[in-house]
Amino acid sequence: MTDTTTWDRAAGQEPRRALVGDLLRQAREAGRTSLTAPEGRRVAEAYGIPTPAEGLAECSDEAVALAARIGYPVALKIVSPDVLHKTEAGGVRVGLRSAAEVRGAFTSIVQNVRAYAPHARILGIQVQQMVPAGQEVIVGAVTDPTFGKVVAFGLGGVLVEVLRDVTFRLAPVSAQEAASMLDGIRAAEVLKGVRGAPAVDRAALVDLVVAVSQLAADFPEIAEVDLNPVFAAADGAMAADVRVLLSTTDAVPRRRYSREEILTAMRRLMRPRSVAVIGASDARGKIGNSVMRNLVDGGFPGEIHPVNPKADDILGRKAYRSVTDVPGDVDVAVFAVPARFVPGALEEVGRRGIPNAVLIPSGFAETGEEALQEQVVEIAERYGVRVLGPNIYGYYSTWQDLCATFCTPYDVKGPVALTSQSGGIGMAILGFARSTRTGVSAIVGLGNKSDVDEDDLLTWFGEDPNTACVAMHLEDLKDGRAFVEAARATVPRKPIVVLKAGRTGAGARAAGSHTGALAGDDAVYDDILRQAGVIRAPGLREMLEYARALPVLPAPRGDNVVIITGAGGSGVLLSDAVVDNGLQLMTIPDDLDAAFRAHIPPFGAAGNPVDITGGEPPATYEATIRLGLADPRVHALVLGYWHTIVTPPMVFAELTARVVAEFRERGVEKPVVASLAGDTEVEDACRHLFEHGVVAYPYTTELPVAVLGAKYRWARAAGLLPGRDGGVRR
Amino acid sequence: MTDTTTWDRAAGQEPRRALVGDLLRQAREAGRTSLTAPEGRRVAEAYGIPTPAEGLAECSDEAVALAARIGYPVALKIVSPDVLHKTEAGGVRVGLRSAAEVRGAFTSIVQNVRAYAPHARILGIQVQQMVPAGQEVIVGAVTDPTFGKVVAFGLGGVLVEVLRDVTFRLAPVSAQEAASMLDGIRAAEVLKGVRGAPAVDRAALVDLVVAVSQLAADFPEIAEVDLNPVFAAADGAMAADVRVLLSTTDAVPRRRYSREEILTAMRRLMRPRSVAVIGASDARGKIGNSVMRNLVDGGFPGEIHPVNPKADDILGRKAYRSVTDVPGDVDVAVFAVPARFVPGALEEVGRRGIPNAVLIPSGFAETGEEALQEQVVEIAERYGVRVLGPNIYGYYSTWQDLCATFCTPYDVKGPVALTSQSGGIGMAILGFARSTRTGVSAIVGLGNKSDVDEDDLLTWFGEDPNTACVAMHLEDLKDGRAFVEAARATVPRKPIVVLKAGRTGAGARAAGSHTGALAGDDAVYDDILRQAGVIRAPGLREMLEYARALPVLPAPRGDNVVIITGAGGSGVLLSDAVVDNGLQLMTIPDDLDAAFRAHIPPFGAAGNPVDITGGEPPATYEATIRLGLADPRVHALVLGYWHTIVTPPMVFAELTARVVAEFRERGVEKPVVASLAGDTEVEDACRHLFEHGVVAYPYTTELPVAVLGAKYRWARAAGLLPGRDGGVRR
Repeated sequence: MTDTTTWDRAAGQEPRRALVGDLLRQAREAGRTSLTAPEGRRVAEAYGIPTPAEGLAECSDEAVALAARIGYPVALKIVSPDVLHKTEAGGVRVGLRSAAEVRGAFTSIVQNVRAYAPHARILGIQVQQMVPAGQEVIVGAVTDPTFGKVVAFGLGGVLVEVLRDVTFRLAPVSAQEAASMLDGIRAAEVLKGVRGAPAVDRAALVDLVVAVSQLAADFPEIAEVDLNPVFAAADGAMAADVRVLLSTTDAVPRRRYSREEILTAMRRLMRPRSVAVIGASDARGKIGNSVMRNLVDGGFPGEIHPVNPKADDILGRKAYRSVTDVPGDVDVAVFAVPARFVPGALEEVGRRGIPNAVLIPSGFAETGEEALQEQVVEIAERYGVRVLGPNIYGYYSTWQDLCATFCTPYDVKGPVALTSQSGGIGMAILGFARSTRTGVSAIVGLGNKSDVDEDDLLTWFGEDPNTACVAMHLEDLKDGRAFVEAARATVPRKPIVVLKAGRTGAGARAAGSHTGALAGDDAVYDDILRQAGVIRAPGLREMLEYARALPVLPAPRGDNVVIITGAGGSGVLLSDAVVDNGLQLMTIPDDLDAAFRAHIPPFGAAGNPVDITGGEPPATYEATIRLGLADPRVHALVLGYWHTIVTPPMVFAELTARVVAEFRERGVEKPVVASLAGDTEVEDACRHLFEHGVVAYPYTTELPVAVLGAKYRWARAAGLLPGRDGGVRR
Repeated sequence: MTDTTTWDRAAGQEPRRALVGDLLRQAREAGRTSLTAPEGRRVAEAYGIPTPAEGLAECSDEAVALAARIGYPVALKIVSPDVLHKTEAGGVRVGLRSAAEVRGAFTSIVQNVRAYAPHARILGIQVQQMVPAGQEVIVGAVTDPTFGKVVAFGLGGVLVEVLRDVTFRLAPVSAQEAASMLDGIRAAEVLKGVRGAPAVDRAALVDLVVAVSQLAADFPEIAEVDLNPVFAAADGAMAADVRVLLSTTDAVPRRRYSREEILTAMRRLMRPRSVAVIGASDARGKIGNSVMRNLVDGGFPGEIHPVNPKADDILGRKAYRSVTDVPGDVDVAVFAVPARFVPGALEEVGRRGIPNAVLIPSGFAETGEEALQEQVVEIAERYGVRVLGPNIYGYYSTWQDLCATFCTPYDVKGPVALTSQSGGIGMAILGFARSTRTGVSAIVGLGNKSDVDEDDLLTWFGEDPNTACVAMHLEDLKDGRAFVEAARATVPRKPIVVLKAGRTGAGARAAGSHTGALAGDDAVYDDILRQAGVIRAPGLREMLEYARALPVLPAPRGDNVVIITGAGGSGVLLSDAVVDNGLQLMTIPDDLDAAFRAHIPPFGAAGNPVDITGGEPPATYEATIRLGLADPRVHALVLGYWHTIVTPPMVFAELTARVVAEFRERGVEKPVVASLAGDTEVEDACRHLFEHGVVAYPYTTELPVAVLGAKYRWARAAGLLPGRDGGVRR
C-alpha cells in the first residue's frame, strides 16, 4: 500500500487520462452507453486494476503460445456469436496446466462445438489466465444524485445481494479512507480470514478501491463502474469482470458562492441592523401582523420598517409604500405577501440592494408552482439577493432578539442552532426547546431551499461564536458535496447533528411527493454523513435531545467509561446502553477498584458498573464520583441514581453538581451523564443537573448514554480521540 | 412435509428412542462425553436425518462393491491413524463415477500414502457417498440454562460465524415452527434461491429441524447436537457431519406449582382482606413505619395488623408481639425486619397458616448470604408459604388501595400491571406512572425471586379482570419454559411487554454480578420471547411508554395503516417510522384517494401519507379522519398534527377525541395514534387525546408509531391478524 494520497498521485497520471478519455469519447460518439469488455479491461489496466490476462487463439499453436505468455493454469473458452451457452456446448475447459493439455482442450472444444452446432461460426478460442481463488468482493462507483461520484465496496455473493452489506464514500478516496471501507462492512471479519481461510491482501484491495474511485472522479462522463466479482486472495486481488457505464446526461452545474460571500450574506441575515417587513399588517391573524408583532415583542433593537402600500403606520411605526422608500441600509427583507406578489417585490428588494430576502409565503414549488419559484430564483440571482425559503415559518436569531416568524418569540439564549426543512418540524423544535428551556442561538426554516440551504447556514454557524452545536432536520441535500465540505470545516470545532428524513423506501417516496426532491439512497447518505463527521440522529426526539444535551457536556479525552450506580438494576441497563452505543466499559485497574471498594458495602459490586448499592448516604455517591473524576484513567462517568429516603433526589443532584463544578474549576472536565430512577421529584433533580453541566434524565437508562455516545462520535470525528473512525453503525 | 405435529408422530417412535437411549447409555457408561461419528450417524438415521452413506473397504473389490451399493458418484478417503492430512498425503479422491475409477483411485491412494508415509498403518479406505452440492446450513440443539432444550437454525459459513445469523426455538418444534425458523433468519432470501441458485427443499429442511428438535427433547442426557454442515439442495438435505455431546450434569428439577395453586395464592396476595406487618414501627424513617403508614394512608379497607414485640400499638392500631397472636385469617405477612430475623418470623407465619410472605429486607443472596436465603426457601416450602422477594420495595395492588411498600401510595387505578426485578427500576416505574398519570392495576417488586416469579404473577394477571396489559422488567428467568407457558396462556387476551436487561455481553456480566443469576444468551431470549408472543421493549422508557399506551388502543383488525398529516415533514418521518416498525403503509384505492382529495387543497398530496397541508382548518382534519375511520379497508390511523393559528392544538385534540369516540360508539374501533408538532400547548393536547383513547405524543414522530407497532405485534401474536408471525426483528 502506498502512503501518498490519491491527489498526489494523480499529478503524474496524464497518459492514463488521455487513453481512457479517448475510449470514452469513441464509445459516446458511437452512441454506446457502455464500454465493451475489452475496452473495460483497457481502462482497468490504465488505472492499475488487475484483470485476468487473455488473448484470442485461432489455432492450437497460438493457444499454446498465449498460454505460455500468460502462465499456467489457463482456461479455454469458445468465441462464437452463435453459441450462447458455452459450457453446454462443451466450449469451456478450465485448469489447463501444460501445453499438451491446452492443445488437447483446443481440439476437443472445436469438435464439441461442431457437434453441438454444426453451422456455428467459430471466431477462435479465448485463452484466459485462471483467476486465483479468493474471497469474492465487489468494488464499484456510482453517480449519486446528491453526492455525485461515490465509490462502493462490499463482499460478493449473497452478503451484498441479500444483506446489502456494502459501504460508500465520496470519490476519490485516499488509501486511508479505502481501508476504512474494508473495516466498515458488517462482515469485515471475513476479510481477515475465517474458517481457516487466509486473510486477504488488504493493500491490494485498498489500491483497487482507490483506483476505481479515482477513475470515477476523473471522468464526469462515467456513470457507473462495476468490478464484480473481484477475487481477493492472500496475495493480490483481481477483477474478473469490469463494467463501465456512460452517463447519458450532463450534470447541470449548480451556482456556488465563495466562503467569504456566504459569510458576508449570512452575517447580515443573522445579525441585521435593519429589517423591512414586506406585507406588514395591522390586522390580527395575518402573517404580516404576526411577523411585525414578533419583531417588536421579541425586543429586536435594530430598525423595523413595515412595508404596506395601503397603510401610513403599522404597530406605531411608519409604513412605506414600497421597500424602495425605506431609508438606510436594510439587511433583510421579510416577505409576508401572497406568492404572486413576491416577484415584483423581490425586484424592488434587488434594486434597493438588500442582500437577504426571507420568503415566508407558500405557493411555490411545493404546490406545483415551479415556474414561479424559478422566476424568483432568476430575479434573486440577477441582483445577488440571497433567498431563504420560500414556504417557511421564518427564522430566529436569539442573541439579536430577532424573531422574524409568524410563531412566538423565543427567549432562552444559548448555544444551539437548529434548522428544519419542514415547517411542522420547525414547530416541534420550538415547542421542545421552550418546554425543556434549551439554550438556542438560532432556529431557521429552510422550506423549499430555492437558494440558501444547509451548507450556507453551516458555514455561518461554524463561525458564529454564539453557536456551539448545530442540529439540522433535512429531507434532501441540494449539493451533498458542498454540505460535506461545510461539515468537515465545522466538525473539528462543533458537533453537527442531522436528522435525515425519508430514510426508508416508503419514507423516500413521501419525501418525493413533498418536496419534489430526488431523495438519495439512504445507505449512501448514512455512510457519507458519517464520513463527514456528522452525528446522525435516529429520530426527531433524539435530534432534539442531542441538540439540547451535547453543548452541556465537555468533550471526552479517552475511551474509558465508568458506571457508578446506586441501583444494580440500572447498572445492568446502563451497561446494555454503553455497549449499544459503541462505548467502552473501562476495565477498572486493581488500585482504583480497591479505592472504590473502600467506599461501598462489602456486598456492593466493584468492577464496572460500580454498584454502591441502594441504601447508601450522599457521602458514598460523592466519594465515588470524586474518585471517578479525580482518576486521569477515567474519561467519562455514567451515574445511576436510585431514589431513597437516605439520599433524596435533590440532595443527589446538588452534591453531583457541586462536585462536578469543583473539578471543572480545577480544570478537570469530563462528560458526566445520569439516569435518575425514582418518584416524580427526580424530574426537578434532572433539571438542576442539566443546568449545572450534568446531562440527566428521569425514567430512562438509554437516553443519557445515547447522548454520551453522540458526544463520543463527535469527539472521534473531530480528531479529539484516537482511532476507530466510522466504526459502529447506529 | 408431513402435516402431523411432532407430538402425534412421537407416539409411534418407541424403537428409535430405545436405540438412541442404548447408545447414549453405553457412551456415558464408558465415561465419554460425546458420541463417535458412527454412533452419531446411527442416531441421525434413527431420527430420519439423512447422512452420506459410507463403508470401509480393505481391498479394491470391496470398494467397488460398496460404491455400487451406495450409488455413484463416490469419494474415497484413506483411513489411517498415522495420516493426519489426508489430502496432502494424496489420500483423497472425489467424484468417482465408475467401478474402473474406483478401482484406479483405490490403487493410487494406497500408492500415494505409501510414498508419503512409508510406515503408516492403513486400516482401509472409506467409500463415501458424494454429498450433493447445495446451500450450506447449520441445524443444532443446545441446552440453554433458562429455556432448556432449544433448537437452532442458521446458514452455514461466514453468515452464521461472522454475522451470527441464527434463530432459536424451544424444542421440540412443530413443522410450522420449523418453517418459521427458515423465514426467521436475516438472510432467509438465500434459501429461496439467489444468483441463479435453485431454491432449497424446504420440506426436507423442515423435517430435519423437527427431527433434531425432537431428538434433543427426547433425551435430557443430550447436551448438544450439531449438524454442521448440512447441505440443503433443491431436492433433499443431508447432514455431512453429526456431533452429539452428552451432558455431564443432571438438571435439578425445579418445584412447580399447579395453575390452581398459583391462582389461589396470588389471589390472596393481590386481593387480601387482612395484612400483618412484621416489624411495624412508630419510628419515622424505619421501613416498618413507612409500610404501616402507606397501608393506612393508601386507604386499604381490609385489616392491618402491626407486629412488634416491643409496642402495644402502632399508628393507633393494636400491635401484636408475634404474628401467631394476630386474630383471623391473615392473607399476607409483610416483613420489615432485618434479614437475620426473617427465618424465625417466617416459621411463625408458616405455623400460623398465612399463605404469603412479602420479604422487603435485603441481606440475602444479593449480598452473598445464599445460605440464609436457602433457609428461608426451605422454611417456606415446608409450610407451603409463597414468598415474594426478598430484597424488594414491596408491592401495590391499586384496586384494593393496597400499598405494601416503603415508597408512597399510588392512586391512579387502571389497567396496567408492572413488575420489576430491580428496586431502582421499580422506583422509575412509580415515578413515570405518577408523572404521566398511567392507570395502574399493580406494581410488584420481585427482587431475588427466591420463590414467586414472573410466571406466577403472569398467571394471575392473565386472570385479573383489572389488568389489561402486563409489563415486566427482568434480568433473568428462573424457568424459561414456565414463563413461556404462562405467556402463551395470557397473550391471546392481553399484551405482555418485557424489558429484558443484560442484553449485551457487558450487560450480562453486570447481571451476573448483580443477581448471581446465569443470564442466558440474548439471541435465545430474543427469539423465544418472540415465539411466546411477548413484545420486547428495547429500553426502559419504551417499556413504560408501551405499558401506558397499549391499553388505550383497540386492537387493529388488519394491516392497512394510513397517515393523515398537516405537516408534510412529519409525514416523511412518520413514514420512516411505519417502515421501521414493520407496519404496512396502505396503498390507497382510487375511490378512497378521490374521497381524500375532495377535502384537501389541490397541491396537497393524497396517496399515503395523506398530506392535507399546513394551513387547513379543523374541518379538513375532521373530514379526513372521518374518512379513515369510516372506510373498512383502513385499519389504523397515524395522525401528524401541525400547530397553526387556524387549527390550534386543543381544537385538534378535541375534534379528534370527539370523532374517535363517535365511531367507537358506533362499534368502529381502530387504533389511532398522533404526533403533535407545535409549541408547548401541544403537551396539553396530547394529554387530552391520551385520556380520550388516542395515543399522542409531542415532539416525536417515532414514539406514536412505535406504540402502534407494539400493538400490531401483540395482535399478530394473539392471533387477531393473519400471517407474518415473528417477522421483523426489533
